[in-house]
Amino acid sequence: MKIVRPTLLLDKEICLRNIDRMIGKARANRLTFRPHFKTHQSLEIGRWFRERGVTCITVSSVRMAQYFASDNWTDITIAFPVNILEIDEINQLASKIKLNLLVENKESITFLQKFLRYPVGIFLKIDTGYNRTGIPAGRTSQIDQLLVLLKDSPLMEFKGFLTHNGQTYHAKTIHDIYNIHFESLLKLRSLKNRYKKEWPNLILSTGDTPSCSICSDFTDIDEIRPGNFVFYDVMQMKLGACSLQDIAVRMACPVVSVHPSRNEVVIYGGAVHFSKDWITNIDGKPLYGRIIIRKEGKEILLDEKSYLSSLSQEHGILKVSPRDLQYFKSGQVVEIIPAHSCLTANLMKEYYCDALKIAKSMPIS
Amino acid sequence: MKIVRPTLLLDKEICLRNIDRMIGKARANRLTFRPHFKTHQSLEIGRWFRERGVTCITVSSVRMAQYFASDNWTDITIAFPVNILEIDEINQLASKIKLNLLVENKESITFLQKFLRYPVGIFLKIDTGYNRTGIPAGRTSQIDQLLVLLKDSPLMEFKGFLTHNGQTYHAKTIHDIYNIHFESLLKLRSLKNRYKKEWPNLILSTGDTPSCSICSDFTDIDEIRPGNFVFYDVMQMKLGACSLQDIAVRMACPVVSVHPSRNEVVIYGGAVHFSKDWITNIDGKPLYGRIIIRKEGKEILLDEKSYLSSLSQEHGILKVSPRDLQYFKSGQVVEIIPAHSCLTANLMKEYYCDALKIAKSMPIS
Repeated sequence: MKIVRPTLLLDKEICLRNIDRMIGKARANRLTFRPHFKTHQSLEIGRWFRERGVTCITVSSVRMAQYFASDNWTDITIAFPVNILEIDEINQLASKIKLNLLVENKESITFLQKFLRYPVGIFLKIDTGYNRTGIPAGRTSQIDQLLVLLKDSPLMEFKGFLTHNGQTYHAKTIHDIYNIHFESLLKLRSLKNRYKKEWPNLILSTGDTPSCSICSDFTDIDEIRPGNFVFYDVMQMKLGACSLQDIAVRMACPVVSVHPSRNEVVIYGGAVHFSKDWITNIDGKPLYGRIIIRKEGKEILLDEKSYLSSLSQEHGILKVSPRDLQYFKSGQVVEIIPAHSCLTANLMKEYYCDALKIAKSMPIS
Repeated sequence: MKIVRPTLLLDKEICLRNIDRMIGKARANRLTFRPHFKTHQSLEIGRWFRERGVTCITVSSVRMAQYFASDNWTDITIAFPVNILEIDEINQLASKIKLNLLVENKESITFLQKFLRYPVGIFLKIDTGYNRTGIPAGRTSQIDQLLVLLKDSPLMEFKGFLTHNGQTYHAKTIHDIYNIHFESLLKLRSLKNRYKKEWPNLILSTGDTPSCSICSDFTDIDEIRPGNFVFYDVMQMKLGACSLQDIAVRMACPVVSVHPSRNEVVIYGGAVHFSKDWITNIDGKPLYGRIIIRKEGKEILLDEKSYLSSLSQEHGILKVSPRDLQYFKSGQVVEIIPAHSCLTANLMKEYYCDALKIAKSMPIS
């Protein structure tokens, strides 16, 4: 295959290894594995999970649930505070598959009591420290109130407590990740202890990729829902959640101009290909991706002095150390590991595995 | 139309007014108007320009040129350093339409001399201070070299010097924009003076939206290529390039959760809808969009204490001042003006003008 424009390359072998490793970890810890499919958004990659025995999944929108339901996924959790405006689509889905929704306030439950036509599973979204969505774990009076309502809702089966420790993404060290995970675990466990008498089957669901990759204590947890691990990226590598050898995606981008006078290389590959997530580089500046070059058949990751430093709509700017400038020439293709693979994969319409194209036809989520 | 998920609303009246105003400005200054179509990426919106007499356009990729050529645009400048890897596509386009390419180094010209099959126009990309791409305006020896090569290239017609003053986007005040524009103008003018004897028809092309909106001195400039002005956005409003009444786009997003305890509102609308461009808010933090509410039939822009403060894949977080919290309820739809409309429009697959859907079927650029 000849690459002539920004192209998302996927190493299937690495991807399958990541899937197998996480399946193994879930199995070893007797956890239900409900992978988040928002990272890849691809029916074909979904099938790689299915071939390995995965039967239940997580998505982040009603549209994404419809998309995967169309490929016979019949047990789906929409891990997003229920959007009651999509009640028609929710009813349609619930009439066909086992659908789990997230609620975190009375208004949503009252609305669902009125307009839900088919049974669904309900998770209470718990905030164990990320402070984005959910009921703070300590507010048991609020949880009590919602559970009273749920008891009175024949179409809503209370499944348990679900959290997402997105704060692990801001961790400075691996120890921060252990601490966040452990603290979250304690909070969830105390909820389980408080409510298990009345709800003996309630489950605890957690699942950010950093914790699921690094931590090994999942006592009392019943289900994990990581997503990013399927590809990993620079952010995960920096967090210590993966090594370079675990990263399954690369953006291949043509070099269109070299500016030795300011140690910069211009690539065709911008915000419409990478999106604009970044991590802070060693120089304190935003790093949007790291650069891989090939030398004598070997793959080399350039150090952080050479990196994707800026993105406008179609342009990417590589800051390149004088020593590395020799590797760049107009008309060449360079490979970049994106800072955040989820958003890059969302923008690109297809993956290339060697010469094979894998469609990713998800309608916008 | 019932809005149930993130939806990009377009006010056609405002959009047409923006187009008419810029056409008027170009006419008053006797400038060729070659609008950049990367902002809207829509054949239909392109036709609104055509109905008003526009015949030549700017795009930012070969794919985008193919897309608009398919709708009978026959005079297109690809304002991106020529990507020689797409030579086949370039030849195909050049066989059918008047195509202008940007070059900034010898390698590209040498390559085109060898592989170009049809005539194209060539602009030398000049860097007048943005420091992203182009030949620094003062390096006339480099320009001389390239012009010698172009003289020897029967299929390449030298058209002139083209610049993009993207540095206006970092301006702190309107005066900065005047200064940047004026400095750029001086540099371009001195190039024209230097080369016009030998190339009497050479043209000067410029065109960032801030300069084109604010400045009135275009002496010696021949062509402008603004793009964003068609919609404008929060960034342009902050720069003083437009007023609230000139902004033609809104993202309508469902509210899914309200957290009064931390003055936050969660919306369905994230990085996959807005992309992740931001400006610095008055509190020093990233602002991804500003909030419009409707009160007694009137549209009100909330002040900067209430704003779109954070984006993850599908979630948006509004920081909302205690006073404004009353306006937000789960199941409501709020309107957000994006920080940067180009990237938001790129992500959304369609525009809604009242109940009318306008497709935007551009393949990924």
